[in-house]
Amino acid sequence: MDGLVLYIANKNYSSWSFRPWIALKAASIPFEEVLIPFNDDASNPKFHEISPTGKVPVLHHGSLRVWESLAIIEYAADLYPDAGLWPFDPADKAMARSISMEMLSGFRALRSACPMNIRREKKAIDLPDGVAQDVARITTIWKTMRQRSGGPFLFGAFSAADAMYAPIVNRLDVYDFSVDEDTAAYMAAMKNHPAWQEWETAARAESWIVPADEA
Amino acid sequence: MDGLVLYIANKNYSSWSFRPWIALKAASIPFEEVLIPFNDDASNPKFHEISPTGKVPVLHHGSLRVWESLAIIEYAADLYPDAGLWPFDPADKAMARSISMEMLSGFRALRSACPMNIRREKKAIDLPDGVAQDVARITTIWKTMRQRSGGPFLFGAFSAADAMYAPIVNRLDVYDFSVDEDTAAYMAAMKNHPAWQEWETAARAESWIVPADEA
Repeated sequence: MDGLVLYIANKNYSSWSFRPWIALKAASIPFEEVLIPFNDDASNPKFHEISPTGKVPVLHHGSLRVWESLAIIEYAADLYPDAGLWPFDPADKAMARSISMEMLSGFRALRSACPMNIRREKKAIDLPDGVAQDVARITTIWKTMRQRSGGPFLFGAFSAADAMYAPIVNRLDVYDFSVDEDTAAYMAAMKNHPAWQEWETAARAESWIVPADEA
Repeated sequence: MDGLVLYIANKNYSSWSFRPWIALKAASIPFEEVLIPFNDDASNPKFHEISPTGKVPVLHHGSLRVWESLAIIEYAADLYPDAGLWPFDPADKAMARSISMEMLSGFRALRSACPMNIRREKKAIDLPDGVAQDVARITTIWKTMRQRSGGPFLFGAFSAADAMYAPIVNRLDVYDFSVDEDTAAYMAAMKNHPAWQEWETAARAESWIVPADEA
């Protein structure tokens, strides 16, 4: 069968693309990457040619199309069960999925006010209602899971759950949220991961500006 | 180990509870059910005693807590791999997860304008922007998947993907959306499923009214 082809958008801005990319990369799962840049409003008509939702990321595997960041990760985890995308302990795996889906379905206030922006100069902005509550819940999740596992990542080694929260780590960083030591340690571990570094280097080399995502 | 205990809220209103309940019930997975009713605003402080998010559904399995509707379904699918919660074909499973996560993360306009309400008398309401677009995408998903599988459900037999869309079937029904024959056939198959019937009977027997969910 053909190999996996992951379609993504701008590495600087596309939080949804970042999740499966860093998950697969950190787990050393082989895939080809195709980047289709955003237009000014963070969309692109070309996405409709490659994806049933007209959005990226989308994974092509032969004639199969898999969309939604976490569904792509689940598909890769089924293909490569030994790669450690999910923690191997069943209770850890259940919690990793719970917090990954909490991310997928929630934290709208933070995500809408603070678009992911890898190369943004660190600077605070005025925050609308709801953002502080999102951040409080997110940092509680990080703390609880790292206390259980001993860190450095949410379940010890880097897993899909860390991948799902990677764009949040960027947000707390570049919008200059004030965070405690424990949260800062998690963010540092994430930003020092070789897969993060590879994504960041590529994002910084991009020249495209998307006004809609410059908050 | 102890059995599975699924905490849910009102069967009439709690769309998030309906998803894992109908998934597990349709797959004949044994679980104990504990219903904690909503207050007027569809919350309840008691949820904080049983759930890390302060929301239901939450699954207790011994000391483990699993939250988010789809994470509960995934945990049950891992415990009972032969129960058919997901389609057995890998491509079907990948698409079932894609559309389940599209549901988990999206369709906000429809979900916010039209709260699930099992016993609501069928009546149309004025619809805000975005609802028609959500419904168009949802019915496209249903049609595409049922054409692939031959129906009656999205992947032939009832699966987790149908469970994730069950509350939408109620919405299109009780808010009297105009639907084509194919969509109507899917909705009828869903509403005639024994697990749906069991949930609906219990919902109709409830006397609680939640003003926040009466649109």
